[in-house]
Amino acid sequence: MRFVVAAGTTETARIEGISAAGADPELMRHTPAADTELLVYGQPVEAPTVPVSPSGCPTPALVTRAVRELLGFDVLVLDAGLAAGTAAPTVEVASRPGGGIRTATPVPEARGIHERAASLGRSLPDDRLVIGESIPGGTTTALGVLTALGEPFGVSSSLPDNPIETKRDVVRQGLSVSNLDTGALSGRPHRAVETMGDPMLAAVSGLAAGAIAGGAEVTLAGGTQMLTVAALLRHAGVESPLTVATTQFLADDGTVDLRAAADAVDVTLRVTDPGFDRADHVAMQRYCAGEGKEGVGMGGALALAEDSGVPTKRVRDRIVERYEAVIGSGA
Amino acid sequence: MRFVVAAGTTETARIEGISAAGADPELMRHTPAADTELLVYGQPVEAPTVPVSPSGCPTPALVTRAVRELLGFDVLVLDAGLAAGTAAPTVEVASRPGGGIRTATPVPEARGIHERAASLGRSLPDDRLVIGESIPGGTTTALGVLTALGEPFGVSSSLPDNPIETKRDVVRQGLSVSNLDTGALSGRPHRAVETMGDPMLAAVSGLAAGAIAGGAEVTLAGGTQMLTVAALLRHAGVESPLTVATTQFLADDGTVDLRAAADAVDVTLRVTDPGFDRADHVAMQRYCAGEGKEGVGMGGALALAEDSGVPTKRVRDRIVERYEAVIGSGA
Repeated sequence: MRFVVAAGTTETARIEGISAAGADPELMRHTPAADTELLVYGQPVEAPTVPVSPSGCPTPALVTRAVRELLGFDVLVLDAGLAAGTAAPTVEVASRPGGGIRTATPVPEARGIHERAASLGRSLPDDRLVIGESIPGGTTTALGVLTALGEPFGVSSSLPDNPIETKRDVVRQGLSVSNLDTGALSGRPHRAVETMGDPMLAAVSGLAAGAIAGGAEVTLAGGTQMLTVAALLRHAGVESPLTVATTQFLADDGTVDLRAAADAVDVTLRVTDPGFDRADHVAMQRYCAGEGKEGVGMGGALALAEDSGVPTKRVRDRIVERYEAVIGSGA
Repeated sequence: MRFVVAAGTTETARIEGISAAGADPELMRHTPAADTELLVYGQPVEAPTVPVSPSGCPTPALVTRAVRELLGFDVLVLDAGLAAGTAAPTVEVASRPGGGIRTATPVPEARGIHERAASLGRSLPDDRLVIGESIPGGTTTALGVLTALGEPFGVSSSLPDNPIETKRDVVRQGLSVSNLDTGALSGRPHRAVETMGDPMLAAVSGLAAGAIAGGAEVTLAGGTQMLTVAALLRHAGVESPLTVATTQFLADDGTVDLRAAADAVDVTLRVTDPGFDRADHVAMQRYCAGEGKEGVGMGGALALAEDSGVPTKRVRDRIVERYEAVIGSGA
């Protein structure tokens, strides 16, 4: 088993009010780089700080790292369009960040990214990949792709109040600039990513397609962005069984019917509850308040911990240790 | 502890007769990429084959990987001028391969590589780094740098008969093209790498300097190339204790007095004997015949195994398993 995280950035993330991945837009540029360093080294190395939302919710990378410390799995980071440097070793599958989805072609190299990642996925020796992501603003580009594909399920948010109207508005503008109607790109996944997506979606759908073709089992670790990857795979004709592993926090998000979405793209949904409500610590309280919810493969990591028989209490204790080591003592 | 391998290539390696790192010059381009994949994944992924010398000696990466499977340490690969793509995740410290040392400036970005690597070394959270290399033709560029610095000790070879006269001749031509006398660059380590070295030497000396400045302990894992790194550090004014960990095979190489060389640059030399003469397997026989000797941090990995109390028999058994999995059954 190998845990893969595809990390990237887009201009779309700079649109005000759509993401909580980082305290402010300038820091958000560094969020995926910081997430990958946290995952690989347990702390930021060249990135300026540990990503926290404006209200203090720590990045889900902290949770994934905590689980990694308990289980010891290998990590592979894909550079799917990072804007800031990272000290985490990466395999580059995209050569630049994604543009804004209100332009005609935010990801001109979508097909190339997909093909590079697919080639890697076919070649990796692992019998199983668990694939997560770190890309600020990623639910908006996911919504853009779903709309272009004609898959009418919604997307979640890292904010407690999902700014879904803002996202829909941005997507409408993006479709209009690209001269597209809803569902216009059904069965054309590369074109959907090219015009409405982000480099992570191209990378993860490629890696998954390649790994599946090579006989590996793939778990997509995340929420509505990973359901969008599944939709891309289905629209590309991939018929193999697919699992999306996510968190209870996302399943509790009232703005999206996760089960219905999973059914729509014929995906097995696995939801893990880490029991954060049983820990009185700021590192977990914000998740219970509906923030953060998912990212950096958090749901997949929690499922791996469960499968290995690690009690959720041990996971929570390790999250607190990590939090206090890299952020400072909590409330 | 983190195990780092700086991997790169140079035009110098294409000079006929100086390296055994790969069956032929075209395959040799892929040797460092294949080495890093072997280390990270246990087998080549995108690289065409496992590096073996013309007579069948497998790359020392196989030994380092075998030890890694027993100890489970984390690996960090630095891209110090790779010419071929690798599926191993890397941190890029050099943007291109080194030129040939018979040109005036084979490593124009020597100082920049050093500084990037030093910044990384200062930032890493590890209390200890063990640093190895994979760069074909690297003993010739090491000899070039030593000559420019005025350090009169020789270098070893991955071939059973060290083509030291060929190397000296190449170095003489290199000095002449750069208008340098022996010892002309004493105390000018960046300039020595720029005119006579390779990107790996810039990267490893930088990483080590940064890590030492940040309070970490550094073990240079290798032979005469790592003694050259130590010489560069001494000529840069670094006075901290330094250890070079290498193999018995290198210590047995009659063409270089390793102890005297270590004394000359004030380095603690640690030599580990993996007892390959007690195994009747082609994967180890070629080492006993004086081939391979060292590389990809082999001596450092063997020292780590010894420190962890892993019997050399277990290391040898694991090498055979790895060999048979990736190359085929041996004699």
